[in-house]
Amino acid sequence: MSGRAFDFGSLFAPGPAPAAGRFSGFPRYNFVGGHNDPDAVPVDDLIAAASSVLAREGRTLATYGLQSGPQGYRPLREFICRKVAARGEIQCGPDDILVTSGSLQGLDLVNEVLLQPGDTVLTEQLTYGGALTRLARKGVEVVGIPLDEEGLRVDALRATLEELRRRGVRPKFLYTIPTVQNPTGAIMGLERRRAVLAAAAEYDIAIFEDECYADLVWSGERPPALRALDTDGRVVHIGSFSKSIAPALRTGYVVADWPVMSRLLACKSDGGSAALEQMVLAEFCARHFDAHVETLNQGLQVKLQALVDALGEQFGTAAEFTVPPGGIFLWLTLPAEVDTAALAPKALAEGIAYNPGPEWSTDAAPARHSLRLCFAHPSVEAIRDGVARLAEVCRRETGVPERIANVDRS
Amino acid sequence: MSGRAFDFGSLFAPGPAPAAGRFSGFPRYNFVGGHNDPDAVPVDDLIAAASSVLAREGRTLATYGLQSGPQGYRPLREFICRKVAARGEIQCGPDDILVTSGSLQGLDLVNEVLLQPGDTVLTEQLTYGGALTRLARKGVEVVGIPLDEEGLRVDALRATLEELRRRGVRPKFLYTIPTVQNPTGAIMGLERRRAVLAAAAEYDIAIFEDECYADLVWSGERPPALRALDTDGRVVHIGSFSKSIAPALRTGYVVADWPVMSRLLACKSDGGSAALEQMVLAEFCARHFDAHVETLNQGLQVKLQALVDALGEQFGTAAEFTVPPGGIFLWLTLPAEVDTAALAPKALAEGIAYNPGPEWSTDAAPARHSLRLCFAHPSVEAIRDGVARLAEVCRRETGVPERIANVDRS
Repeated sequence: MSGRAFDFGSLFAPGPAPAAGRFSGFPRYNFVGGHNDPDAVPVDDLIAAASSVLAREGRTLATYGLQSGPQGYRPLREFICRKVAARGEIQCGPDDILVTSGSLQGLDLVNEVLLQPGDTVLTEQLTYGGALTRLARKGVEVVGIPLDEEGLRVDALRATLEELRRRGVRPKFLYTIPTVQNPTGAIMGLERRRAVLAAAAEYDIAIFEDECYADLVWSGERPPALRALDTDGRVVHIGSFSKSIAPALRTGYVVADWPVMSRLLACKSDGGSAALEQMVLAEFCARHFDAHVETLNQGLQVKLQALVDALGEQFGTAAEFTVPPGGIFLWLTLPAEVDTAALAPKALAEGIAYNPGPEWSTDAAPARHSLRLCFAHPSVEAIRDGVARLAEVCRRETGVPERIANVDRS
Repeated sequence: MSGRAFDFGSLFAPGPAPAAGRFSGFPRYNFVGGHNDPDAVPVDDLIAAASSVLAREGRTLATYGLQSGPQGYRPLREFICRKVAARGEIQCGPDDILVTSGSLQGLDLVNEVLLQPGDTVLTEQLTYGGALTRLARKGVEVVGIPLDEEGLRVDALRATLEELRRRGVRPKFLYTIPTVQNPTGAIMGLERRRAVLAAAAEYDIAIFEDECYADLVWSGERPPALRALDTDGRVVHIGSFSKSIAPALRTGYVVADWPVMSRLLACKSDGGSAALEQMVLAEFCARHFDAHVETLNQGLQVKLQALVDALGEQFGTAAEFTVPPGGIFLWLTLPAEVDTAALAPKALAEGIAYNPGPEWSTDAAPARHSLRLCFAHPSVEAIRDGVARLAEVCRRETGVPERIANVDRS
């Protein structure tokens, strides 16, 4: 519209930088974010679920909170209780569950209830980038605990806790992703979980456990959740349906006791999370969750294999990674010549998007040569072509990987 | 669970008071909030819409933002453009629209982008209570502008702006609900809208226009939105599907130009609003919106009439109100003996819930004897019985209304 004379520029409060530009679609080789496999969306069963739940309860859309109140659609909370019991050994009731608008909202609510500027929080040294940006925005000090192949290292955790105690600092909580860690894919074993809880008890800290990826373990076997092993009530637990069903449904949950839950509720002033998602998920999951996740996991393993094969063919020994035991991400480390943040825009210009390592690390330096690849969303063909193109861009810009003569690059 | 030794009490950040207790269902005579008419939820057409849109596009649930990006499902934005053009004369394109998780999120985002503690905001003296609590929580000074039967008074607006200018204060914006004002139901006429815009131009302030109730005008006639009349680009506009379709769907929208929109997007870090709602609403509304709203409005008028009749029968001359020209609320003023905030818990003990006036007023005193009744949700029978009971409780507690001998109260 012409003649827009009013200047909002003088009115803006300080905040995040404005969005750079309009959405222009996805890159051709889209390895970023937590997008899922379009082929795995259970469309027919979701349609059936939507039809039956709306026919039975559609009238309840007329009230905020349906007939269930602010903690969310009760049948969904009941399903979540069964799921976390069967898969994570968490014993809880529907009143211990808060349905959130994605686990992102769970993250925001827990942070809002517990954190003030100047507080200290412990995280894994490599962790979910969205958590790091939120903690930074809150003015919180973040200390990253190094990981090994099983996740966060207890010796490092204890050393950090002792050092902080010496300085008179009590961290508000340890934020940990113990089952299919983001980005490394590690699964923390039972003994280590007990050791983490013991350290938390000794230093009297809370634990904020994020199991958003935990339903996607190929073998179907995973240790009990920290919340299940904890006997002191120090663990707040979040989960999600974004990875097991579909991210656009924006439905996650928090498991917490009433002192924390009552404050989460006081902060959740949104009139309730979207009801249709909750109703359809409850209806679908009650019948189909296990079979769906099994099918999804099989498909994800096929894609992971394609990625692993492509990395081997295109990068050879230049690609260092552990094959994840589940989930949708692979954490790739390249040689020291490669600055993955600097490479990212060059790759994007060729249609390849990935998440540069430093965005997933509490300290940029250890992750400078690493990147995270999401293999769930692109097709097998896009995975192969995308990795081949990435290798070319990388070679052009950094000299690695060296050309492998016997691979056809056409 | 027993043995919960960990004390979160020492960890909580300052924040809202914890939720008082668990949800225990709705009161029998539920006149609070913006709940809608269960009979008017278009269940069958929503089922059909869900089936067709999921069959066609269900795969897109695999990506955050579907295929439309962070501003929301494009067909829904396109529908919103058609709707605000047809009903409010706003000319805009899909890129001027941000779909939000209810208009509440729109309110929060606009406040986040524009407000800092110590800022001044103008509102109608009687206004949406949720806006007042949010502004208070942000540490913003709120100045209420008195209303008459057409909404906010321009002479009072100008006097306030002049006084503030004299004190060196430039308000960040005027928050106004010009079409079916909440709680009074007033519709601001065309001339007054022009006068409000002229005052805003003279004092160079922004306007935050909330038209959440505007589709529910009985006559179907309403003046153009302030955003439509504005030629300077000073109006940010929000709307909602909560009142026209169903509140539990949590879907609203903001209409704004790119300087504001780009900052709203930067603050909207939720991974997108729930997708299923957006898809189903777009599919349903494209075919059925006008016919549905007409049916809804007819049903609401029936309920309003029942309320008006009941108030006349039970309260007689003690009840002072203007019959609203649309919407779901009636603003009732009782005699000076009645303190509606003090009466509310007594009424609730008898199963009657209403919103006491002071919660909807920038200054408690002028609203002390008033209350807001939502007539959309209760049945006609519940409206009659609820008003009768309310009159009894009121008489018992305050002496008014006097008993009207010829009405059967059994």
